[in-house]
Formats: sequence, structure tokens, C-alpha cells
Amino acid sequence: MAKEKRTAIEPTREQDYPEWYQQVIKAADLAENSPVRGCMVIKPWGYSLWENIQGALDKMFKDTGHTNAYFPLFIPVSYLEKEAEHVEGFAKECAVVTHSRLELNSEGKLVPASPLDEPLIVRPTSETIIGEMYSRWVQSYRDLPILINQWANVVRWEMRTRLFLRTAEFLWQEGHTAHASEEEARQETQRMLRVYEDFAVNYMAMPVICGRKTEGEKFPGAVDTYCIEAMMQDRKALQAGTSHFLGQNFARASNIKYLSEAGKEEYAWTTSWGVSTRLIGGMIMTHSDDDGLVLPPKLAPLHIVILPILHKDDQKQSVMQYCQQLCSELQGLKYAGRDLKVKIDSRDMRGGEKTWSWIKKGVPLRIEVGPRDIASDTLFVARRDNGQKQSIPRAEFIAKAADILDDIQAQLLSRAKAYRDANTKQIDTKEDFYAFFTPKNERKPEIHGGFAVANYDGSAEVEDMLRKDLKVTVRCIPLDGGAPTGKCIFTGNEGKYRAVFAKSY
Amino acid sequence: MAKEKRTAIEPTREQDYPEWYQQVIKAADLAENSPVRGCMVIKPWGYSLWENIQGALDKMFKDTGHTNAYFPLFIPVSYLEKEAEHVEGFAKECAVVTHSRLELNSEGKLVPASPLDEPLIVRPTSETIIGEMYSRWVQSYRDLPILINQWANVVRWEMRTRLFLRTAEFLWQEGHTAHASEEEARQETQRMLRVYEDFAVNYMAMPVICGRKTEGEKFPGAVDTYCIEAMMQDRKALQAGTSHFLGQNFARASNIKYLSEAGKEEYAWTTSWGVSTRLIGGMIMTHSDDDGLVLPPKLAPLHIVILPILHKDDQKQSVMQYCQQLCSELQGLKYAGRDLKVKIDSRDMRGGEKTWSWIKKGVPLRIEVGPRDIASDTLFVARRDNGQKQSIPRAEFIAKAADILDDIQAQLLSRAKAYRDANTKQIDTKEDFYAFFTPKNERKPEIHGGFAVANYDGSAEVEDMLRKDLKVTVRCIPLDGGAPTGKCIFTGNEGKYRAVFAKSY
Repeated sequence: MAKEKRTAIEPTREQDYPEWYQQVIKAADLAENSPVRGCMVIKPWGYSLWENIQGALDKMFKDTGHTNAYFPLFIPVSYLEKEAEHVEGFAKECAVVTHSRLELNSEGKLVPASPLDEPLIVRPTSETIIGEMYSRWVQSYRDLPILINQWANVVRWEMRTRLFLRTAEFLWQEGHTAHASEEEARQETQRMLRVYEDFAVNYMAMPVICGRKTEGEKFPGAVDTYCIEAMMQDRKALQAGTSHFLGQNFARASNIKYLSEAGKEEYAWTTSWGVSTRLIGGMIMTHSDDDGLVLPPKLAPLHIVILPILHKDDQKQSVMQYCQQLCSELQGLKYAGRDLKVKIDSRDMRGGEKTWSWIKKGVPLRIEVGPRDIASDTLFVARRDNGQKQSIPRAEFIAKAADILDDIQAQLLSRAKAYRDANTKQIDTKEDFYAFFTPKNERKPEIHGGFAVANYDGSAEVEDMLRKDLKVTVRCIPLDGGAPTGKCIFTGNEGKYRAVFAKSY
Repeated sequence: MAKEKRTAIEPTREQDYPEWYQQVIKAADLAENSPVRGCMVIKPWGYSLWENIQGALDKMFKDTGHTNAYFPLFIPVSYLEKEAEHVEGFAKECAVVTHSRLELNSEGKLVPASPLDEPLIVRPTSETIIGEMYSRWVQSYRDLPILINQWANVVRWEMRTRLFLRTAEFLWQEGHTAHASEEEARQETQRMLRVYEDFAVNYMAMPVICGRKTEGEKFPGAVDTYCIEAMMQDRKALQAGTSHFLGQNFARASNIKYLSEAGKEEYAWTTSWGVSTRLIGGMIMTHSDDDGLVLPPKLAPLHIVILPILHKDDQKQSVMQYCQQLCSELQGLKYAGRDLKVKIDSRDMRGGEKTWSWIKKGVPLRIEVGPRDIASDTLFVARRDNGQKQSIPRAEFIAKAADILDDIQAQLLSRAKAYRDANTKQIDTKEDFYAFFTPKNERKPEIHGGFAVANYDGSAEVEDMLRKDLKVTVRCIPLDGGAPTGKCIFTGNEGKYRAVFAKSY
């Protein structure tokens, strides 16, 4: 019997995907649960991923004409009430602030004191409070458009949480714009959706489908919600970003009115759009393997780690000197508009343990440097994405380090795309559809179909049925997906959409 | 009678300093009060100052070996209770979360529902929750030091608020470090104090005194609090940053223990240090004048604004073309490690109004470009700091633009330093001290002394007396201030410190 191959992460993806995900995060030291229910601590390695995500996205937002601002953490309950669907969507799970002081009671215990006149909720999203401010800022069409983004924390009191994917508090950005015409607001909604697509594909190396949500899945209060949907390695979908066309719903609720060029009083047209720390979960689940995290070079906090091999005391100095020289040469290079990030790990620990620590952290390239490598002025280079190892003359490596990283970035994207395409199926009958989403093996529920593309009549009844029977939802109606090719496979009614269906996070 | 000079800001500093401050903020469109009590909205121009502050400080933190991370917004009340002085200091003004849902009552009103088992407070500062995490992360001396910073929002339910200076919610950074020795923790405390000094002086052009707080003024739970103190133009002091040596107080409260190299179980030594959006208030009050905001170039969101003079239709195209060429040449330059920020303001509005809008926003340099300037290839350049205007040949200006900005930065610092020094007095008797802090003119309470330097016995009684009689506090015991030169001027006791006294924000 062949000996089973040992992996750094146990269980493997195939053995237990949800637990594998937790173990990858733990092994890479990205984040952990805090003692505050549902709130995570984002540890330095995880936070540096968020910083890189922020850096790249922030530049894209500014290049498309947006500026940042900051609005209050708290929202008066009466504001939430202004938009009927919105309050319905967010009142159920929110942190409610009711007091402004603690005092000692007669038993010496600290208890809430000084009740507020009106309770406040911690923002789950900021349409209502930002809308209130916009209503003060906008008088005339000359005050429009307003193109503002906010980087902030938000809170939704979710019952079941999972690091990065669903936590009570999370970090995100929320863009909020107001326009003088429907057309302009619709264009903005599409523009930001495409910014998210660009970021997902070209920075995260995560292929996504751009589409529109059904009525049942859209943002509470929106006219239309657009999204980017990605496939994880358990073939489930992850909604990775959303862009909402809000019509005049929130302008009406918040009274954002302007005097048009024609001198008529009109409600503004608004949009909102956001991505969150959930993206980190998506990045993990798209690329990582049974040895841990795999990072796309464009977002990696560290591109190259240099591992000096220090067996003999008398060689230490010369090896370290060579490594330092190499490190500073590499640090002078640029990759994807940033300084190339390189460091030497000279910690006093076993070589195998040290190497594995960087494998588990997902660093794209490792270079081992020992006396023999120095003698031949050659570097022993290992790629994280495919495990490939080869000796490369030092000068040659320095000349093409950025190209190698580009190649890793490209390989990750094409691998993820191939995986998604292989697990996306055009389905023509309800029977095939149910078979596709029914696990072949009860003990491995992750081995279900993936993305199903099918004609659909657009009815809420079909959505309810699929959610109940299969835990499957319409992920989106792809924007680039074309018209339905026939009747609804569930009802035989006229096909309204050719939609993407999947189980999801 | 001479006609009074009109200023863009009314009232002037001399007429009503607090109101002048509010009007400078309004005229520059930096921030405004929100409908949520005590919470401000930081508008794009104000937020871009914060982004520049963040960018510069974040680099300084990383250069001194720190990394960023993120901890929960909420702190269980029981955590706050762990450190006796700490809870005393923060329980009085905090936002208390008591429920996790809203529901409609019988009158159709949304009311809090699903009470929490234990109330949570919104972090006023994070020593306790971060301490809890560190206690999990630290086992051995090998796990130390931990050098982490967090950029976050915090909430303190202040009764009287003022934009940037004191608001219920504000943005800040809080560094939290843990060390294996007292000496190392003390060094860290000093290192970060000096980072703040460096930033205040070299970026904000705001001279500061580095010093230690008295027992009465230190952070609740700290062993020693160090601070940077700056003088505003009303001669009051602003505490602009603090660095706390926490000893083993919080390590004991949070149980941060480690096994030392000698195999003994020990409590760690911790520090914390922070600056906040208050710095923006300090920057405003240090440099701005009766025409509005004056920005130090190193933190300005925009360095140069180009104002095309477009009187005649037939010249518009050539003027705009010249401006665009100039703008792109300037945008290719670097200033203080950043790209030079330049824009053309071609809004259709009166020239005077347009010019004043940029004066009020504090942009360091304005360039007017009209047909005659183009004919002579000369730029009409105005400096915001001193109002100086001169024609400079285009090529010459491009060659020395960065130098001019450097000069503005240097002038702002030396002007602020001269102002502070002129209003700092060495005082030798209690009588002189009281006279120094007693307004000469009841209607102009801002015309009091400034900073008083005096020998002091270090007693709480003196501090209480001065607070009560004069609203004056010991701002700090300067680190570079030397030993007392004689007896305490208030009590005749042995002089313990030579301290800086002032009224303060």
C-alpha cells in the first residue's frame, strides 16, 4: 500500500474543506476569533493583505474620480426606519447602543447608566446617515455628482460566523454617490462593478462573473444590485463585491433634492458599492492548497524570502554577507508598481521548519543560499504556486525576478479559471440540475456540481424551491451571458434569464 | 479713521478665537457636525489631511519595526474592570451596547430587542482587549517583543465637543507593545514619543515640547505618561500625542505572562501610544490666519493650484493649453517623497471668488496664468503662508517649485516657534504667575500669558489650586528642560520639577 503523502495542512481540502480553511488561516497566522462574540482579530500577516487590497483599490477609486471621507459610526434608529425595505433588512441583526455610561450598582458590578433618548445602532452600512448629510450638501445640480468613498468598520450581528467570510464586525469600503440623472447613476453603478472585476481578476487572480441579482437576492432598498461572483475550491460561490443602483429610493428617504438646470426640484439618483475583508477569504479559498496559503504576488506582503543555510559556524559570516547583498539588490527592484518586498529569515531554527513556515504563509518565492550556491553564484529558487525548484544564476534571477512573479500571478489566474470552467455546466433539465447539486457521497458534501447555467423564468417560486430543496440560489444573471436559449428548465414557462446557480457562502 | 482691513474669515482670531476656529473649518470645508450627538463628518478635504498624516506616520511606525493589525470594536465590560484606574477613567463616558436586534413594538416603533448577556462598550482605547489577545500569544521570551499598531475609530462620550479637538467618535492610531524587560519597554515609550516629535516638527511644522505628565494628568493605568505639547495661537496648549509606559499593570490585569530565558514565569512590560484626528485641529490652530486655513506643504492634499484667466473667448483655448502643459510638467516632479500634487481650476466662476476659495483651503501656492503671462512665459505665483506674490519665469519656477515649498514649510515652523517662544515666560513668583494667567481684558480672554516655566514642588495640592483658580494645569515636565533652579514658587517647598504650565484644550 502506497504511503499517503503528508501535507502541511490537516485535514486536506478533500477530507474536510471547512476545517481545511480554518487551518490554513491558523497556519499562516492571518486572523483568529476574539473573545467578543463573532468579532475577529486580524493579525499582522492578514492585515498586511488588507493594506495591499486597500492600497490598490483606493488608487482605482481615486483614478475614477472619487475621494474619501468619514461619517459617524452610529446611526439613529429613526434614520434606519426611513427606508422600509432597508430597515427590514438590517434591524434584525444589529448592535444597539442604549446607554452612555457605566456605573457601579449596589453589588459593586458595572451596569449601563444614562440611557440615551434615542437608541443608536452601530452602522451595518451607511446609506441612511450619508444620505442625511448629502441632503444638507446638495441644493443645485451644480453640487452633483457627489463621488465619495469611506473605509470603515461595520457591524452585523450574524448568528454563525466564519473568519473573514462572515463576522459580526468587518472592515470594508462603501462608496456612496449621488447624481443628477438616472443614466449617470446607472453608469456609475456599472463603472464600479467593473472596477471590482478588474481588481478581482488582475490583483487577486480570482476570475469572477459580473451579473445582476434577482429581486430576492438584492440589497434591501436597491432598485438593482450587481455583483461579482467567484468559485471557491469547494465549488461554492462567493459573492465578492456588490454595486447597487438605488434609484431615488434613498434620496426620497433622506430628502436629497436638487434644483435642476431647468429650475425644477428633483430627487437625486444614488448608488452604493462595497467590498470587504471577505475578499481575503475569497483569496484564500481560490488559491491555497493542502500545504497552506498561496498568495497572488500582486497582493503578497512579501514577495521573496531568503533562507541562508548556516550549518557551519565558519561559513556563517560569508553566507549572511552574500544574502544581505542579494537582498539589497532585490529590494531596489520594482514589481507591479510597488517596491519588491524581500527579507532574510535568519532565525535560529531547523531549516525544514523554517521553510515550511513560509510555505504555509504563501510567500511566492523562496531562495535558499548555502556555501555551494555561493561558490557557483547560483540561487536555489522555489515557487510556492507549483512547487517547482530550480537553480538559477544570481544575475539571471535578479534580471527576471519580476517576470517570474508575473508568471506566478498569471498561472494562479489561469488555474483558477480552468477550475471554475471545468466545474461550470450548462444544464437543460430540472432532473440534471438536481443531480448536479446532489452530493454523490454523503460524507463529502463538497463534491457537488459547481456553477450551473440554465434558463429560468425569473420567478420567486423557483428560487424558493431551489433554496429549500438544494440550498442553491441564483447567484446572478450574468451581464455578459447572453439571452435565454429556451424555456425555463424548472417550470416550462418562457425563459426570462440565462442565470448562474450555485450553493454559496 | 482708517478703514478696517477685510478678512476672509469673520470673526478674526483677535475678535473671537473659538468662533474663528469653527469658521476656518467651515470655509475650508474640512468637517462638520453630524446629527449624531458629538460625532463629526470628516469631509473630503479634511479627510485627505488625515490620509497624509496616516501615510507619513505609518511609514515611521514601520521603519521602527511595527506592524499593523486590527482588534474588535467592542470590549466586554468585565475586561474594562480588570484594571482599577483604567475603568475609573473610561467608564464614565462610553457608548454601551446592550441589545443585538431591533423589533417593532405594539405602537409600530422600533425598540431594542434580544438583550446581550454581558453589555459591551465601544472601545474608548484598546489596552484591555489587546492585552487579552497578547496573553494568548505570549508564552516564552521568544514571543517578545510584540510591536503592533492599530488604525481605528474610538468613542468617548464627551459632553462638550469641538470639531477635531474633542468629539465623541474620533479616528486615531494606537500602538500596543509588550516586552521582556522594563528597560526595553521604557526605550520603546521614548522612541515613539520622539517619533511623534519628529512628525509634529518636520511634517506639521508644529514645534512641540516633549515631557512627562504629572500623576494627576497621566493616562488611567499608566506608570508614566509622556506627551508632546504645542502652543496654539490663543496661547493655549494642545496635547498632541501621548506615549505611555504601562509597567506591568496591564500585563497583570490581562495576564500577559512569559517564561524568561532563565525559565522563570514573568509578567511582560507593556506600552501604548497614540495620536488622533486632533492633530488636524492642532495644525489648523498653529498656522491658519484671518483668511483661513494655511497648510504645511508636506501634508497638503494639493501643493499648487493653477488658475487660468479666461476673459476672452478667443484666448481660452491657448490659455488652457498652456495651463495643461504646465500642470503635467509640475505633476512629474517630486516633493518630500510624494508626487507633487497640482491641479487646474477651470470652474466657471468669478476670478476673485475662485482665488479666495483656494486661499481659504490653505493651498501653499497659486499660479495665475493669463495671456500676458503666456506672452512672457512667466507665471504669477502667490504664496499662501506670507501672501507674497511675484512673477517668475516658467522654467525657473519649475526648477525651484520644490525649494519654494520647502521654504514655506520652514517658514511656517520658524514662525510658529517664534510665536511660542515669545509667549513662553520663565516665572519666579506666585504673584507673577497669577498675573501672567489673568486676562488683561475681560472681553478678550484669549490674551492671557501662554506657557509659564516655573519651579514646582510636584504636589497635587498646587495642581488643584491652579486648576481651580486659573484653569491652568501642568502641561508637562520637559524632558529636555533641566533641573529646578530653586524653591517651588507656590509653596516655598523644595523645587522638584521645572515644569511647563498653561491653559489647555
